[in-house]
Amino acid sequence: CSSTTPITATFFPGDGIGPEIAESVKKVFTTAGVPIVWEDHYVGTEIDPRTQSFLTWESLESVRRNKVGLKGPMATPIGKGHRSLNLTLRKELNLYANVRPCYSLPGYKTRYDDVDLITIRENTEGEYSGLEHQVVRGVVESLKIITRQASLRVAEYAFHYAKTHGRERVSAIHKANIMQKTDGLFLKCCREVAEKYPEITYEEVVIDNCCMMLVKNPALFDVLVMPNLYGDIISDLCAGLVGGLGLTPSCNIGEDGVALAEAVHGSAPDIAGKNLANPTALLLSGVMMLRHLKLNEQAEQIHSAIINTIAEGKYRTADLGGSSTTTDFTKAICDHL
Amino acid sequence: CSSTTPITATFFPGDGIGPEIAESVKKVFTTAGVPIVWEDHYVGTEIDPRTQSFLTWESLESVRRNKVGLKGPMATPIGKGHRSLNLTLRKELNLYANVRPCYSLPGYKTRYDDVDLITIRENTEGEYSGLEHQVVRGVVESLKIITRQASLRVAEYAFHYAKTHGRERVSAIHKANIMQKTDGLFLKCCREVAEKYPEITYEEVVIDNCCMMLVKNPALFDVLVMPNLYGDIISDLCAGLVGGLGLTPSCNIGEDGVALAEAVHGSAPDIAGKNLANPTALLLSGVMMLRHLKLNEQAEQIHSAIINTIAEGKYRTADLGGSSTTTDFTKAICDHL
Ligand SMILES: CC(C)[C@H](C(=O)O)[C@@H](O)C(=O)O
Ligand SMILES: CC(C)[C@H](C(=O)O)[C@@H](O)C(=O)O
Repeated sequence: CSSTTPITATFFPGDGIGPEIAESVKKVFTTAGVPIVWEDHYVGTEIDPRTQSFLTWESLESVRRNKVGLKGPMATPIGKGHRSLNLTLRKELNLYANVRPCYSLPGYKTRYDDVDLITIRENTEGEYSGLEHQVVRGVVESLKIITRQASLRVAEYAFHYAKTHGRERVSAIHKANIMQKTDGLFLKCCREVAEKYPEITYEEVVIDNCCMMLVKNPALFDVLVMPNLYGDIISDLCAGLVGGLGLTPSCNIGEDGVALAEAVHGSAPDIAGKNLANPTALLLSGVMMLRHLKLNEQAEQIHSAIINTIAEGKYRTADLGGSSTTTDFTKAICDHL
Repeated sequence: CSSTTPITATFFPGDGIGPEIAESVKKVFTTAGVPIVWEDHYVGTEIDPRTQSFLTWESLESVRRNKVGLKGPMATPIGKGHRSLNLTLRKELNLYANVRPCYSLPGYKTRYDDVDLITIRENTEGEYSGLEHQVVRGVVESLKIITRQASLRVAEYAFHYAKTHGRERVSAIHKANIMQKTDGLFLKCCREVAEKYPEITYEEVVIDNCCMMLVKNPALFDVLVMPNLYGDIISDLCAGLVGGLGLTPSCNIGEDGVALAEAVHGSAPDIAGKNLANPTALLLSGVMMLRHLKLNEQAEQIHSAIINTIAEGKYRTADLGGSSTTTDFTKAICDHL
């Protein structure tokens, strides 16, 4: 009977606070009886020439094999001549869409209480091409690359997501009034896909105006789809509306059904090892992973336990104004299960 | 005696609601006894081959000659094969820095009451190079150009602004972890200039993190300096924090002391001609122009009259939840003078 066969999933605990919050996820998942066997992979201490980064080829192979994984924060030392770990994962695994749901957490007060939106970010090209050079001394250029293939793919993902998640509207975010060819192509692809989803309202919003509207009235938005850098910017802005990256999950979607859920906050080396870190973003990312695996019952149980623990307010980590340790907060969640 | 010789300034009322709010500014300035003679220039109905846009060469010459001007909104019909009016002005007049102060207006409530920051945007290059092409079918690229000269120039402007306006901190906003060469050069130039201003605190903030911090706690920021597109995005975000582009002024600074103050909101064709438009952004931009001209006394008088009228709340235009006409709101300001 397939429901009792455990699923193998890759786990990258990551750096800094990563291992602590990874422990928290494992404890909560075990308590909830989630049928997952974790395959842990750590960031290496030497550069693997096959990945040009501290990520080993075996780590990537693990995700390719399991088709599902969870990832903690990974710090990339800047300017050391090797590739960013996050970008290596996205590029090598062809993780083309980064999905970040962002909603007001009941019981955790911010200036906004009406946020419920999903940013879907193209995750492989755009301003992240890595193509840059010096033209002459004092003049440098970067290339932003937009392709029809990647734009159609992420647009298709966004509309399909909207349709299957009961969402009503997709907003394509762009700056096509300035970048007519690149962002223009992105919009053209979104329009083509929109035609196939007449039940979903489609609109186009210029990025500057989008940011203004988001801070004035985030309830105006539902699903947002956009090129890479805009997604980077807007997803952080949206996270800020509901309390920050410590509270918001994300999941990277690849070809062939690969899904790598990821806490996108930093590795917080200053508090690493002190049992002070907030595991919420990684836990909620784990919930996204469970939903992807159609383990919906456990996903909802764990989700409620997290939300209720935060809402009750008795156990909160320092970043949320409380004084609980990571382990106490985790235990409180387990007690809710 | 030079204080009684009137100053000639160029005025671009612009399109849509432009002429109405321009009238408002003229009335308020006249009431305050501002010694300015306006040279009005309208957007043409035919493309001037010398500017490749609806802006005539004579209009540009007027700003070059007067070295000071005020500009209302100008709509650029998209995709008609001519240049954007706003961009034509910036490029032809070499308006290299766009300064947008953004502060909570006493008496106008938003979710934030602690905003007081200045965004300074590089206004001539970056993602606005206009250089784009199709590489092969379905693959397009845009060039982002960063130069040492333009980066030093805007950084110098930002630090000088901070020093002469009693500001304590300059934050350079970037994405140099991804665009190491372009944004890296921008940061390098900011660092060089920062060395010359030891009394000003200098920091570097990644744009995604900046947006998150801005919506969580805008009081963390003081003066922000950044490449063109980031400035476009962040200035609109900041405007949103205090109520939107209808309330925030801006001023473009060029070489040779040219200053073109500008309301950066749209031309709102839907309410044009109906006496419903809010002239606040253009009025406050006019105040920036007066300060630039060292007409500080009149600048402060007009500024107080605007702020007090809004704070009293009796006369407010529809966008601020009131029901006043443009002319009633303008009269209320004049009555305060
Ligand atoms: C760490 C950095 C390279 C990364 C990005 O820019 O994509 C991060 O900001 C993110 O959003 O995952
Ligand atoms: C209208 C548009 C071209 C312009 C820009 O992108 O610079 C506007 O958004 C602005 O900020 O002045």
